[in-house]
Amino acid sequence: MIKTDTIVALATASGAGAVAIVRLSGADAISIANSCFQSVKNKKTLLNQKTHTIHLGHIIDGKRIIDEVLVSVFKNPNSYTGENVVEISCHGSIYIQQEIIQLFLRNGCRMATAGEFTLRAFLNAKLDLSQAEAVADLIASDNEASHQIAMQQMRGGFSSEIAKLREELMNFASLIELELDFAEEDVEFADRTQFAALINRITFVLKRLIDSFAVGNVIKNGIPVAIVGEPNVGKSTLLNALLNEERAIVSEIAGTTRDTIEDELVIEGIGFRFIDTAGIRETKDVVESIGIKKTFEKMEQAQVVVLLFSAEEFKTESKRLKVEIEKIKNRFPLKPLLVIANKIDVLNDFELKTLTSEFNNLHLLSAKTGLGVDELKNKLISFVNTGALRNNETIVTNTRHYDSLIKAFEEVNNVKAGLETGVSGDLLAIDVRQALFHFGEITGEITSDDLLGNIFANFCIGK
Amino acid sequence: MIKTDTIVALATASGAGAVAIVRLSGADAISIANSCFQSVKNKKTLLNQKTHTIHLGHIIDGKRIIDEVLVSVFKNPNSYTGENVVEISCHGSIYIQQEIIQLFLRNGCRMATAGEFTLRAFLNAKLDLSQAEAVADLIASDNEASHQIAMQQMRGGFSSEIAKLREELMNFASLIELELDFAEEDVEFADRTQFAALINRITFVLKRLIDSFAVGNVIKNGIPVAIVGEPNVGKSTLLNALLNEERAIVSEIAGTTRDTIEDELVIEGIGFRFIDTAGIRETKDVVESIGIKKTFEKMEQAQVVVLLFSAEEFKTESKRLKVEIEKIKNRFPLKPLLVIANKIDVLNDFELKTLTSEFNNLHLLSAKTGLGVDELKNKLISFVNTGALRNNETIVTNTRHYDSLIKAFEEVNNVKAGLETGVSGDLLAIDVRQALFHFGEITGEITSDDLLGNIFANFCIGK
Repeated sequence: MIKTDTIVALATASGAGAVAIVRLSGADAISIANSCFQSVKNKKTLLNQKTHTIHLGHIIDGKRIIDEVLVSVFKNPNSYTGENVVEISCHGSIYIQQEIIQLFLRNGCRMATAGEFTLRAFLNAKLDLSQAEAVADLIASDNEASHQIAMQQMRGGFSSEIAKLREELMNFASLIELELDFAEEDVEFADRTQFAALINRITFVLKRLIDSFAVGNVIKNGIPVAIVGEPNVGKSTLLNALLNEERAIVSEIAGTTRDTIEDELVIEGIGFRFIDTAGIRETKDVVESIGIKKTFEKMEQAQVVVLLFSAEEFKTESKRLKVEIEKIKNRFPLKPLLVIANKIDVLNDFELKTLTSEFNNLHLLSAKTGLGVDELKNKLISFVNTGALRNNETIVTNTRHYDSLIKAFEEVNNVKAGLETGVSGDLLAIDVRQALFHFGEITGEITSDDLLGNIFANFCIGK
Repeated sequence: MIKTDTIVALATASGAGAVAIVRLSGADAISIANSCFQSVKNKKTLLNQKTHTIHLGHIIDGKRIIDEVLVSVFKNPNSYTGENVVEISCHGSIYIQQEIIQLFLRNGCRMATAGEFTLRAFLNAKLDLSQAEAVADLIASDNEASHQIAMQQMRGGFSSEIAKLREELMNFASLIELELDFAEEDVEFADRTQFAALINRITFVLKRLIDSFAVGNVIKNGIPVAIVGEPNVGKSTLLNALLNEERAIVSEIAGTTRDTIEDELVIEGIGFRFIDTAGIRETKDVVESIGIKKTFEKMEQAQVVVLLFSAEEFKTESKRLKVEIEKIKNRFPLKPLLVIANKIDVLNDFELKTLTSEFNNLHLLSAKTGLGVDELKNKLISFVNTGALRNNETIVTNTRHYDSLIKAFEEVNNVKAGLETGVSGDLLAIDVRQALFHFGEITGEITSDDLLGNIFANFCIGK
C-alpha cells in the first residue's frame, strides 16, 4: 500500500474564495514545486529552505505566470504526512486552482485519492488509525459535542487507553506462550490471580467504552426528536424560537450556510434533529390513517417525542388530547415524552389554571413571546446523558471501533471463563491473541488494504 | 479611512474542506493570535518568531482546545496588508472555522469588512488602486484571457504606463505653473514644441487604452453569441459537443462545479456566453410573434449570431431558411452571422452538394459525430480581436478606469487645442491639472472614502 510518488490536491473547500491552498506531498514535492516557482525579488530556490518557512513568488508555466503565491515548505518528517509537503497559497479563483493543479499534474504529480494525505500520515506513523479516522470526524463535526469527541480522539485519548490495555495483555500473552515452551515442566510464569485482575480491569474498560457508543452515536448524529402536532399548532414558530440565538451567530459570520436549518439545531453544543410529523388525530379517512401510521414509525425512530398542541386546541378538544397522550404513552412506555402547550399567551388566568390541572407535567410555551423557550432547551438537554461528555471521558462514536470492541469483549470474556474453569495455557493463549487482534484493528497495528481503502474512501480529496 | 485595529475573517472559500484559513491583520495580530495559541511540544510563543515562519500548535479557549493548527506569521511590513498578519490553517469544518473566528472576535479582533485586507494593502502602499482592483478581477476570472489581463494589471502593467505619463505631464505642469509666478516677465520655461510632442504621445497612448476597453470588456464578460434555431435542430447537442474537452478537465478535478455549464464555455481561453433563442419562423400566432420579437432583441445584444438549422429542415424548408437568413442580414448588416447546418450525417452526397450550392458560407456540422466542431471553434475565436491579448498589450477592462481615461483624454485634447491656439499659461495649467487629476484617480493617488468604499464593497470578505 505504501506509495512514494508525489500527490497533489486542492486542500481548501471547493469554490472561489480569497485564498485557496494546493497541497503537494511526496519525496519530490519540493523539487516539483520548485520547478514551477520563481521568486519575486531575488533568485531564491525552494530547494534549500528550512522546514516551516514561507516564500513569496510566482507559479510559472514556462514563461507564463499563473499566479503570485505564498509557498509553505515542510520537510520530511516534520509535516502532516511525514513526507516532504508543499502548500501553495494562491488567489482563490477556481480557474487558478485548476491551472495550478493541472500544472503540477503535468510536472510529475499524481492527483491524490480521497484521504490519501491522511493515509500517508498513518502509513508513516504520524497518526494511528483511530486518530486518522478522527480527522474525518473532526471535519464533519458541526457542533461542540461531536467536535469535542473527535478532537479528543484525534489527540489520541481513545488510542492511548486501548494501547495501554493491549500492552498489558500482550505481556501476559508472552508469559503464557512462554509456559507453552516449557509445557513438559508444568510451570506457571503468568500469575493467574494477577491475570484475572487484569482481565477484570479490561472487561470494565471495554464495557464502559461499549456503553459510551450509545451516547457517542447520538452526539455524532444528533438526537432525533419527533414533533407530533396538527398543522397549525406552531411547529415552525417553535423551531424558529429555538433557533433564534444560533441564527444570530451564523449570520454574523458571512459565507456560512446551513442547508437544513429548519430540521437541525444545536443546543448547548448538542445536535438535535427535529422530525416533523403529522398529528395522530383519530380519523376514518384511509389516507389520513396512513399518515398516522407514519407518525408512529417516526416516533419509533426518535429518541424523544414532543407532542405539541396549541392552547386554542385545548379549549375545544382537551378530551382528544388526553386520548392522544395516553396512546403515545401506551405505545412507547419507555420513550421520553414531552407535552407542550403552545400559544399560552391567548389564555386567561382561569383557562391557564384549568389547563395545568388537567394535564400533568405540561410544558407551557409561547413560541411567539419566547416564554418557556429556555426551559424547553434545558429539558431537551436533560434527555441526553451528557455526563460522560462533560467529564471528558472517552466516548466511542465509530461503528468500526464499536464492532472491534464488542469482539474484543467477547474474546476477553472467553479468557475470563477459561481462567475460571482452569483451561490449559494453549487454549487461553488463542483467546488472548484474538482479543489482541481486535484491539490492534482499532489503532491500526493490524490492517488490511481493504480496510484502509474503506476507511479513507470516506475522506474528502485533499485531506 | 486608515484604521489600525486588528481584523479577522475566513480567507478560504466558505463551506467545509480539508483545510481552512482564518486570517488576522493589524498591529495586534500576532499578540492576539499568541494569546489563543499553545505550542504542542515546547513552550513556544508566537511573539518572537521570524516573519514567514510556520508554527504547529493548538488554538485554545482557556483550557478548551478548539483545534490543532498551523500558524503562519508575517511581520509588518512584509505581509499582504503591510501590517502584522497571522494565518491560522485549521481543520476545515464550518464549526471550527466559526469557533476560531468567534474566539478572536472575543479577544480583540473585529470582523473584516469586504475587501478590507486589500484596502489596507492599498492604504499601506503595497498596491496601487488599479492593482487592488485587479485582485478582485483575478479571483473572479474564470478563463485564460480574463485571468491574463487581471494578472497583468495586478503586476502593475497598467499602472506603470499611466504613472509614467502622469510624471512627464506633471513636470510640464510644474514648469507652466512656474511661468505663472514670473507672469510679469513673460518667460516660457516649458518648451511648447516639446510639450505638444508629449501631449501627442499621451493622446496616442490614451486612445489605445480607451480602444482596448472594447476588447477588454468582451474578454472580461464573455462574448455573447445568440443561437437562433427551432427547438429540434440540436442546440444542446451542439453546446455539448463544444464543451466536450472542457468537461473532461473539469470532472478530473473533484469538487469544481460550473453552475451554468449549458450557457457559458471557454474556447482557447476566451469566454463565450451562448444565448439560446427561439427560431424566427414566420407565423400569424400572436404569442409566437412575441417570441420572434424577443429573438431579435437577443440578436441585438449579441456580438455574434449563429443561425442553426438541421439538415432535415433543409430538405423540406430550404426556402424558409433563405428568407430567414436574408431577414437577419438586413436587420443586422454589420453583425457577424454564422449559418450552421447541423445533422449533416443524415444527408447523402447529392443532398450535401445541393445544400452547399444553395447556401453560401455554410458551416457543415454534425454535433453528434463531432464533424466540424473544431472548425466551428476556430471560427468563433476569429470573431474576437485577440491581437492585443496575444501581443501582451495593456487592456482596460474596468469601467471606472475607462471613465477616467475618457475624461483624461478630453482634458488632454483641451490642452492640445489650447497649445494650438496659444492660450495663456494659466488656462493651460488648469486643463493639465484636470488631466493629472483623472490619471491619479486610476492609480489611487487621488481617492475619496466614497470611491474606496464603492470599490472594496465588491470584494469578498476575507480578501
